[in-house]
Amino acid sequence: YPMEAFLADIGDVPWSREPTDLKRKSRDYYWYSPILAEQLKDKIADVIVTPRDEADVLRVVAACYRHRIPLTPRAGATGNYGQCVPMEGGVVLDMAEMNKIEWQKPGRVRVQAGAKLFDIDAQTRPNGWELRMHPSTKRMSQIGGFVAGGSGGVGSVTYGGMREPGNILAARVVSMEENPRVYELRGDAAQKISRAYGTTGIITALEMPLAPAYDWIDVVVAFDDFHEAIRFGQAIAMADGVIKKILAPIEWPLPENFAALKPYCPEGKSVLLAMIGEMSIDTFETLLESYGGTLTYKTPSEDVLNKVPLYEHTWNHCTLQMFKVDRAITYLQVLYPHERIIESVAEIGAKFKGEVMQHLEFIRINGLMTASGIPVIRYSTPERLYEIMDAFEAADIKIANPHVITLEDGSRYKRVDADQLGFKHEVDPLGLLNPGKMRSFTPKHEDVLR
Amino acid sequence: YPMEAFLADIGDVPWSREPTDLKRKSRDYYWYSPILAEQLKDKIADVIVTPRDEADVLRVVAACYRHRIPLTPRAGATGNYGQCVPMEGGVVLDMAEMNKIEWQKPGRVRVQAGAKLFDIDAQTRPNGWELRMHPSTKRMSQIGGFVAGGSGGVGSVTYGGMREPGNILAARVVSMEENPRVYELRGDAAQKISRAYGTTGIITALEMPLAPAYDWIDVVVAFDDFHEAIRFGQAIAMADGVIKKILAPIEWPLPENFAALKPYCPEGKSVLLAMIGEMSIDTFETLLESYGGTLTYKTPSEDVLNKVPLYEHTWNHCTLQMFKVDRAITYLQVLYPHERIIESVAEIGAKFKGEVMQHLEFIRINGLMTASGIPVIRYSTPERLYEIMDAFEAADIKIANPHVITLEDGSRYKRVDADQLGFKHEVDPLGLLNPGKMRSFTPKHEDVLR
Ligand SMILES: Cc1cc2nc3c(=O)[nH]c(=O)nc-3n(C[C@H](O)[C@H](O)[C@H](O)COP(=O)(O)OP(=O)(O)OC[C@H]3O[C@@H](n4cnc5c(N)ncnc54)[C@H](O)[C@@H]3O)c2cc1C
Ligand SMILES: Cc1cc2nc3c(=O)[nH]c(=O)nc-3n(C[C@H](O)[C@H](O)[C@H](O)COP(=O)(O)OP(=O)(O)OC[C@H]3O[C@@H](n4cnc5c(N)ncnc54)[C@H](O)[C@@H]3O)c2cc1C
Repeated sequence: YPMEAFLADIGDVPWSREPTDLKRKSRDYYWYSPILAEQLKDKIADVIVTPRDEADVLRVVAACYRHRIPLTPRAGATGNYGQCVPMEGGVVLDMAEMNKIEWQKPGRVRVQAGAKLFDIDAQTRPNGWELRMHPSTKRMSQIGGFVAGGSGGVGSVTYGGMREPGNILAARVVSMEENPRVYELRGDAAQKISRAYGTTGIITALEMPLAPAYDWIDVVVAFDDFHEAIRFGQAIAMADGVIKKILAPIEWPLPENFAALKPYCPEGKSVLLAMIGEMSIDTFETLLESYGGTLTYKTPSEDVLNKVPLYEHTWNHCTLQMFKVDRAITYLQVLYPHERIIESVAEIGAKFKGEVMQHLEFIRINGLMTASGIPVIRYSTPERLYEIMDAFEAADIKIANPHVITLEDGSRYKRVDADQLGFKHEVDPLGLLNPGKMRSFTPKHEDVLR
Repeated sequence: YPMEAFLADIGDVPWSREPTDLKRKSRDYYWYSPILAEQLKDKIADVIVTPRDEADVLRVVAACYRHRIPLTPRAGATGNYGQCVPMEGGVVLDMAEMNKIEWQKPGRVRVQAGAKLFDIDAQTRPNGWELRMHPSTKRMSQIGGFVAGGSGGVGSVTYGGMREPGNILAARVVSMEENPRVYELRGDAAQKISRAYGTTGIITALEMPLAPAYDWIDVVVAFDDFHEAIRFGQAIAMADGVIKKILAPIEWPLPENFAALKPYCPEGKSVLLAMIGEMSIDTFETLLESYGGTLTYKTPSEDVLNKVPLYEHTWNHCTLQMFKVDRAITYLQVLYPHERIIESVAEIGAKFKGEVMQHLEFIRINGLMTASGIPVIRYSTPERLYEIMDAFEAADIKIANPHVITLEDGSRYKRVDADQLGFKHEVDPLGLLNPGKMRSFTPKHEDVLR
């Protein structure tokens, strides 16, 4: 790529070509997958550019377009499928400096895309509000990265995933064109950038709905039997009078890896991790009485940086805790059938004893309570991994394959959203944004000739 | 009853034996049912007693017990089945003076039982909170009357009914004994007084969970077809990212009776009435685009006494609006099967065209979104009414019969909760509390002898 000409064009926008920067900022958590680890290890950016504001973004984009240099946005870089790895090199656009809270109103916040989830909550909670949901990577991830690369997380047990209508209020988006345009996508239109890996425009700002900032209580309940933990979790999930933010049944031996929660995770027991609204904790304990669990931990949540939060044992952090003690593992992302969660969990459990360790996250999808899961798998070969995936599907458990880099292959539906594909042609006619991630896209002949 | 002795015993506790007071305070909204209207018209109290505090209640109760005089608590008297009609005369205990807010904390409020729902909300909203749910009689009902006589209402689309675990945090209850005891029932135990019509003790105070006081928007959407209104209502009901408090599809010609909403209810159209969180209104409108409805009204909710609120067209207020123009009607209380709401609505619609007019309230029950309904019925004879009820049941629609006075007959399960019956023996061994309402209760021989 004509880097000298590009750098001249972007003027005083900060950039770096330091080899350590290039290396460090071309990676994310794709190493979770032994398959992707192999596939992506040599991909590297030519330059890291760090815009200070939207004007900088416009300038960088115009220069990229002019010189036909691909651009890959980068937020907290916690993606698990190489979402922000620059497959064809070029520019990595580091959004970290665009991190301002623009305004807050009751129930809404408007932020620059690079604001960290942790900082947003820290600034909205004093006003009685917080983000409806965040990934377990709240302390590292940015709101733009979550919207463009994530799916849901802590809070989805109440509000569903990021994709549910109403969970993104508006997105401000810059197109990749000769004369870049700025779109303000409101309501449903904002879904055009949701989980599109930045292939459908660069998000510069987001308006997000907020949830009431309840006083949360962190809870650990230990069970002899994993299925009992699921059953109780489901009872709480279905109790609409009980306010909750996490309900995660986790199968032994996974809790063995939880350094920070060690004293509350007895040897041999499966656990339910939960965040419960303070006013609902008595009800939670009363309902527990009809199940075989033992409450081992109950403490007000305190989301401060020098303490490992409860949520960093759930979602894909459960996998991470195990990685810390055992590297020979990998994982899947699954959705259990909502009418037979326990049956399907049992089917897999029986078939892959010791090889597959399950943990669930209760979440709402399309108005129904169900459970997603990120089973941890002792890794041997790609063939065996695909065999295990087949078994999940045979048990009616849906899979979003995390061992692939394209949107389509990673989706449960094996296709990209039609609206996103249409919008892609509008905002990135040449396919310069995060190339290689949207397989269904090929530039139109007339756009390439232009 | 030995009234003179009783009055001497209660000392300075305020009371009245004025015939107009006795008449007025022995009635509720039982006249909704032509069957109950006939059955209850002559029931009358011997004295109305108005306690100022719990000490007064204890004194009155002890005197009732001593002289074997029945006592029936009375709150806002909006019950529809004669819940606060003194079947055997005696004392009516008017709770209106015990109306203080004891304290507020984030997410919780503690109030005396006689506090009006309207006043509670007025005092919690400035702090960012409101009751999770209220009946459409919010302006008349008291919290004690709602807990003891109601089931759910505005807000149940999110939190489920009053019976869902966690929707009552604690109840303070006085027993009917020689030496009355005061119970503090916390958590699940508080369900012992839920919808028990005051037969299981006199509630003097309640601790209730609160919901965030969103800025609500009142909305009316008009549809050519009632089923479309239901379909759209259900889509919003299932959208967990859309904050809502009411979702009520109402079949034409019922909206014809809505004086205050007349301009927004076009001739011949069925409507959906909704209360939507301000931050979700764009999403609501976007989703509406794929349905055939027309938004005719969209205004911030303003719950002030000189304005008819939107919610006074939903739940049993829909019936009341029709009563104002046509007395020859009655109603049922039903629960549609959640997996085939529209089909069952259609079945009844086809069978009783012009005779049965349906309106639905989306609510959560046991974690599932479903629809309750209060169909309005052109009344001819009791036989025909029971015929219609049979048809509902044949269509898989459950009925809570509102034309009967006992807890058991009015329940979908035709029995009183086992815990309540057990508790009844403990707190009211002689059956002096609201006699005639709990059919399964007969005093134990040893209690009567004592
Ligand atoms: C331990 C661990 C736990 C996790 N838990 C969860 C979880 O609970 N829920 C969940 O959904 N995911 C989870 N993930 C995956 C990942 O954390 C989420 O996708 C996260 O939200 C990504 O945010 P980020 O800021 O790190 O984005 P990045 O990884 O930096 O970027 C994600 C994608 O967004 C694009 N992007 C970033 N910023 C912009 C922008 N401004 N405009 C356009 N495109 C942009 C990038 O190009 C990339 O394709 C987890 C990952 C790990 C490693
Ligand atoms: C137009 C209309 C609309 C309605 N809409 C709804 C609705 O949306 N949802 C719903 O659930 N119901 C509804 N109802 C029924 C009724 O309004 C509710 O049950 C209401 O909550 C009753 O409250 P109240 O204060 O009027 O109680 P009352 O009718 O005075 O009393 C109800 C019962 O509670 C007992 N009671 C009252 N106070 C105490 C106490 N302190 N201790 C012990 N027992 C006590 C009484 O003895 C009686 O049995 C409606 C009724 C009408 C007429």
